[in-house]
Amino acid sequence: MSRVVKLAVIPGDGIGREVIAQAERVLDAVTADSGVTFEKTPFSLGADRFLQTGDTLSDDDLAAIRSHDAILLGAVGGVPGDPRLKDANIERGLLLKLRFELDHYVNLRPSKLFTGAPGPLSDPGEIDFVVVREGTEGPYVGNGGSIRTGTPHEVANETSVNTAFGIERVVRYAFELAERRRKKLTLVHKTNVLVHAGAIWKRVVDTVASEHPDVAVDYLHVDAATIFLVTDPSRFDVIVTDNLFGDILTDLAGAVTGGIGLAASGNINPDGTFPSMFEPVHGSAPDIAGQQKADPTAAILSVALLLDHLGLRDEAARVQRAVEADIASRDRARSTDEIGDAVLALLQA
Amino acid sequence: MSRVVKLAVIPGDGIGREVIAQAERVLDAVTADSGVTFEKTPFSLGADRFLQTGDTLSDDDLAAIRSHDAILLGAVGGVPGDPRLKDANIERGLLLKLRFELDHYVNLRPSKLFTGAPGPLSDPGEIDFVVVREGTEGPYVGNGGSIRTGTPHEVANETSVNTAFGIERVVRYAFELAERRRKKLTLVHKTNVLVHAGAIWKRVVDTVASEHPDVAVDYLHVDAATIFLVTDPSRFDVIVTDNLFGDILTDLAGAVTGGIGLAASGNINPDGTFPSMFEPVHGSAPDIAGQQKADPTAAILSVALLLDHLGLRDEAARVQRAVEADIASRDRARSTDEIGDAVLALLQA
Ligand SMILES: CC(C)[C@H](C(=O)O)[C@@H](O)C(=O)O
Ligand SMILES: CC(C)[C@H](C(=O)O)[C@@H](O)C(=O)O
Repeated sequence: MSRVVKLAVIPGDGIGREVIAQAERVLDAVTADSGVTFEKTPFSLGADRFLQTGDTLSDDDLAAIRSHDAILLGAVGGVPGDPRLKDANIERGLLLKLRFELDHYVNLRPSKLFTGAPGPLSDPGEIDFVVVREGTEGPYVGNGGSIRTGTPHEVANETSVNTAFGIERVVRYAFELAERRRKKLTLVHKTNVLVHAGAIWKRVVDTVASEHPDVAVDYLHVDAATIFLVTDPSRFDVIVTDNLFGDILTDLAGAVTGGIGLAASGNINPDGTFPSMFEPVHGSAPDIAGQQKADPTAAILSVALLLDHLGLRDEAARVQRAVEADIASRDRARSTDEIGDAVLALLQA
Repeated sequence: MSRVVKLAVIPGDGIGREVIAQAERVLDAVTADSGVTFEKTPFSLGADRFLQTGDTLSDDDLAAIRSHDAILLGAVGGVPGDPRLKDANIERGLLLKLRFELDHYVNLRPSKLFTGAPGPLSDPGEIDFVVVREGTEGPYVGNGGSIRTGTPHEVANETSVNTAFGIERVVRYAFELAERRRKKLTLVHKTNVLVHAGAIWKRVVDTVASEHPDVAVDYLHVDAATIFLVTDPSRFDVIVTDNLFGDILTDLAGAVTGGIGLAASGNINPDGTFPSMFEPVHGSAPDIAGQQKADPTAAILSVALLLDHLGLRDEAARVQRAVEADIASRDRARSTDEIGDAVLALLQA
């Protein structure tokens, strides 16, 4: 009997739908003879759905998604400043809600400069690192509020919450990843200013480091890390960092490796208690939606991360190789579908 | 009777001392015939002083510094990981303490790509923007703590505190600066995640914007801002942002404009209640201290900011021009003193 993977697909808004269409074609093709059947359930979620129904993510949606083995997501979010979305906060109410409810404590974001990929650096060197971003704590917890809101006496606070439990599990994941890679781990934080949050990160990394004597451990303040990302990105192998610093570093890392049109990510629940979710780092870019201008590569590489996560390593490697070959041979602007076609052709070659 | 400016000079640690020596030569030369006399008081503060006396910044030091008109600071901080400095936290106890006690609510950081300056971008375009970083609030307030510290049940919190009072004054400063420049202001924050801190920033910027109808206002999430800093830095004129995002963006901005060896900053109390403080963005770099390897340009440009702040606009412009001429003619590695010599010669030419 063949293995069945129940996959929830959330194309989302804007270019999300276009890129996910191509990602699905690649997924279908590469798994056709794999002995694994993907049962896909589409979920209509995002700004468009909110505008139609007023729902962001209902309990029923969440329960339905939870019953799947994995999730493929395009991008969610409406036109910035759309007054009808003012109180929706699709990002917190949908994307972050999924990450928190499904305990995606590892936000995995590989950065690799592929041969032929355009990039802003004149001398990038070899870039091949992975950011392991904590996904369920830090300044992202939504633990804030304000008093005298809207008056000249307003005070608005946001609290970053960091636990030994939460940090240790993601740090362990990062060390295990470093063991399988070039055995170098860099903690990025701002320990000199965020003294308490910084101290717990430092302490946990030091503790886990003692169990991995062969991994070289390094520390950088987040400000210094951004400098190295543009002046010496080759120095990085595995970066482990908190939710907010990881958000910032991975957009910058995406930019230096050819743009976030190429950057894939996995929101992973390593315990397997909940389905993990794979998505391009880019947003829904409503300004170019429906114009076949979006690069589906990030979504396709997210399929590779999904396959890898499911243990389908050969299939993951085939997708990765097809994308690399496609990037290496780029010589003109192509439409979303054309890039999908090209990757498919390379996959079957 | 000639005007007297009482200047507190804090060379600090590591390369701080070397670069301040050159900055002082330039200051002395450019003000020699200005009719303004600088009465300089050196203050021995920093990691070295802490190691000798156990003092970081005593009440007496602070009172003495407060009685000056302005401060020139090199860099403070010891060798990273030095166990004797473990509990000192020179950054919080000295640098941030000065910024907070002297109400340096504008942290002014110009970023300009000078002709001839090296940079990591292959096609940087014209870069000329100023980051107006809030200096006394946000995640920098030191409002954190932890429970069950060091145990597997530790929880460590850090609270970002944001007030309408604190934001409005820095936002007003930024708009006034934009009025004198290219009339473009970009707010950088993370409003989609830090909902409360983001909302107050947005609200204050919207309010002040209505008084400056000729300034074009723009908003970027901090992650997207880092992308534009490496792909399209010319788009920026004035960036206004919170303390932590400003810290991150200005290191990155320094890197794309030739390295933080060229990046100057002013910690400004625009009300004039307390002395403002001028310092290079770089740190004390103990690894290269005493080797004549440090570039004093950032410290010298900090002197230009100081002169400008004191209303000595001609003198400021002369320093700026001498530095630009020096950078344009760089053709080999030079020592700290040689760069100082060259700028001095250009100043007198
Ligand atoms: C859309 C936003 C909430 C999200 C984040 O900040 O995590 C995005 O920037 C990302 O990196 O996936
Ligand atoms: C040394 C550190 C406390 C400081 C900061 O974070 O503000 C530095 O990075 C800076 O930018 O001046």
